[in-house]
Amino acid sequence: MQDVARRAGVALSTVSATLTGARPVSVATRTRVEAAMDQLGYRPNALARGLASRRSRVLALTYPVGDSGLSRTSAEFVISAAAVAQERGYQLVLWPFGVDDADGVLDVARQGLADGVLVMEVHAGDARVAALRGAGVPVALIGRTADEADPDLPTVDVDFAATVADAVAHLARLGHRRLAFVNHAERRLAEGHGPTLRASAAWTAELLARGLDPVQVYAEESVAGGRAALAALLDGPDPAPTAVVTMNEEATFGVVAELAARGVAVPAALSVLAVVSSPAVAGQTVPPLTTLHAPGAQLGRAGVDALLALLGTGTVPAPVLEPCRLVDLGSTGPVPTPAGAGALAGSGTP
Amino acid sequence: MQDVARRAGVALSTVSATLTGARPVSVATRTRVEAAMDQLGYRPNALARGLASRRSRVLALTYPVGDSGLSRTSAEFVISAAAVAQERGYQLVLWPFGVDDADGVLDVARQGLADGVLVMEVHAGDARVAALRGAGVPVALIGRTADEADPDLPTVDVDFAATVADAVAHLARLGHRRLAFVNHAERRLAEGHGPTLRASAAWTAELLARGLDPVQVYAEESVAGGRAALAALLDGPDPAPTAVVTMNEEATFGVVAELAARGVAVPAALSVLAVVSSPAVAGQTVPPLTTLHAPGAQLGRAGVDALLALLGTGTVPAPVLEPCRLVDLGSTGPVPTPAGAGALAGSGTP
Repeated sequence: MQDVARRAGVALSTVSATLTGARPVSVATRTRVEAAMDQLGYRPNALARGLASRRSRVLALTYPVGDSGLSRTSAEFVISAAAVAQERGYQLVLWPFGVDDADGVLDVARQGLADGVLVMEVHAGDARVAALRGAGVPVALIGRTADEADPDLPTVDVDFAATVADAVAHLARLGHRRLAFVNHAERRLAEGHGPTLRASAAWTAELLARGLDPVQVYAEESVAGGRAALAALLDGPDPAPTAVVTMNEEATFGVVAELAARGVAVPAALSVLAVVSSPAVAGQTVPPLTTLHAPGAQLGRAGVDALLALLGTGTVPAPVLEPCRLVDLGSTGPVPTPAGAGALAGSGTP
Repeated sequence: MQDVARRAGVALSTVSATLTGARPVSVATRTRVEAAMDQLGYRPNALARGLASRRSRVLALTYPVGDSGLSRTSAEFVISAAAVAQERGYQLVLWPFGVDDADGVLDVARQGLADGVLVMEVHAGDARVAALRGAGVPVALIGRTADEADPDLPTVDVDFAATVADAVAHLARLGHRRLAFVNHAERRLAEGHGPTLRASAAWTAELLARGLDPVQVYAEESVAGGRAALAALLDGPDPAPTAVVTMNEEATFGVVAELAARGVAVPAALSVLAVVSSPAVAGQTVPPLTTLHAPGAQLGRAGVDALLALLGTGTVPAPVLEPCRLVDLGSTGPVPTPAGAGALAGSGTP
């Protein structure tokens, strides 16, 4: 480093300040120092600086590995978290581990590279979270379990209750009174999957408060699951819905496929609203779907900031709940007249 | 560390070996050492170990930031690269920078955290690559520019020529002789976008070699772009194609939408084959599309291994080209009879 100072014609402390940002350095000086470093092939060592400050300025993001890859919403979250970490002077490292692989997470946490960890897709009684906390590693949670938020952990999540309430209000304004909800798979309830449980409870409460029947089906996360769920709604003993709200991205493609196969016109005969999705996905179907856009990017920002708040102050910031935002691509419309509703019996054309 | 050794009842060198993996340690011993570390609240310091070895065992992945987020193929690549790095005892850090932001990439590279950098979406004359090489940072490229691969840089890429040849061979076996290709946007040619240029050249060569007309249209990367491209093919002066090959994921949704709007039956009246896509995406349309699956996961593995080979030996490994694999979801079929082809004039039903 003394060679760099000599060649740049500055004090050693100025080289140090250029590297660490500990005090401001003019652009001209920074340029001279960097040119000297280049000429000398000198690479300032983040590791050495990390040791000195006992901070690496690295955050980790751990997420479950699986065959299905990253959903669009999860990808938006990861990309946003990396960009916000960057803005804050941190780097984001990815830790891919199964949700049950507490040992794997703990092993890599023990390497001490990351100052703190964001945990995605938190499960009830999550072993990864317990292991990290046991080892004294600062943690923030993306998504809550079925349990109440732990007051000792920063948490950011989609506001599922507000999202469901917004969806119902949007359709009620259009005159719909026979609504149905396509949720995640039923086994998710037993798993304590927060989104499934919260959305289910909010749906029931919202519809009962409006004096409506809270019709709900659970669908496997697949095109076939969505087709079966919609068939159950249209072929069941109860009157067919005039509007369907889906919160299950893969199944939503099946709902649209089943409607196309039956020749049900959207939104003339049936309105469809995809919630906790994104226009990038919901715009891919024919017709494109109106959606309540999952706040992946906002959650990425909020998650990084919650973890940095914990690291900075040692105190747990208040939980953050982000709502979804309506993006109208035209798949919801006024409740059909009785003649229009007849399309559900197969007489309509797309 | 001596406290840990004393509490675990092992030699200091055994604690060190447990942390560094420098020599094998039995599971029982590792368990004792880790228990002692937990009891003492001891976190071994990756930074200290990195300094000792002059290696951080961190790899960086830099990718362009943008509004569109990560494509499914890019997401598969990132997830795979992180998992393979993990298997190899490395951690993968994300560096989100614009393709022109060489200064940003260089600033973070100068922090010295990463031993080497994977660069995604390489452009012709890529400023990021030039900056990193100038600073002596080991680099591997994911995707090639229009130029020949640089022999001084490890490169992994989709084998676009083989993919196009496989697509044409698949359709030729089904009897198709009027084929059309929907490529990326025309401006990509001027940008030196490797996939657009390579696929275009391969398409022309393949069809001419078979004595067929190499019909090709360029489409904006959007649903509207795909609709316009298909309309141009069907409404143009030339005979309509009996098979369409698309290599543009967003436009592919538009191609399907336009076919649905015109009532063209797939594959009875027209075969559709989506290349360099994935079944997860191509399965979302109605009908689902047969695809040549982009090798995102294989490229992630190959990219990490190419960079580690460079780091390990200092020599540049041979370029890797990964083919796409056919996943048949039923959207390609035998060339229609003249009666069936009449559907393109609007007389068919879906």
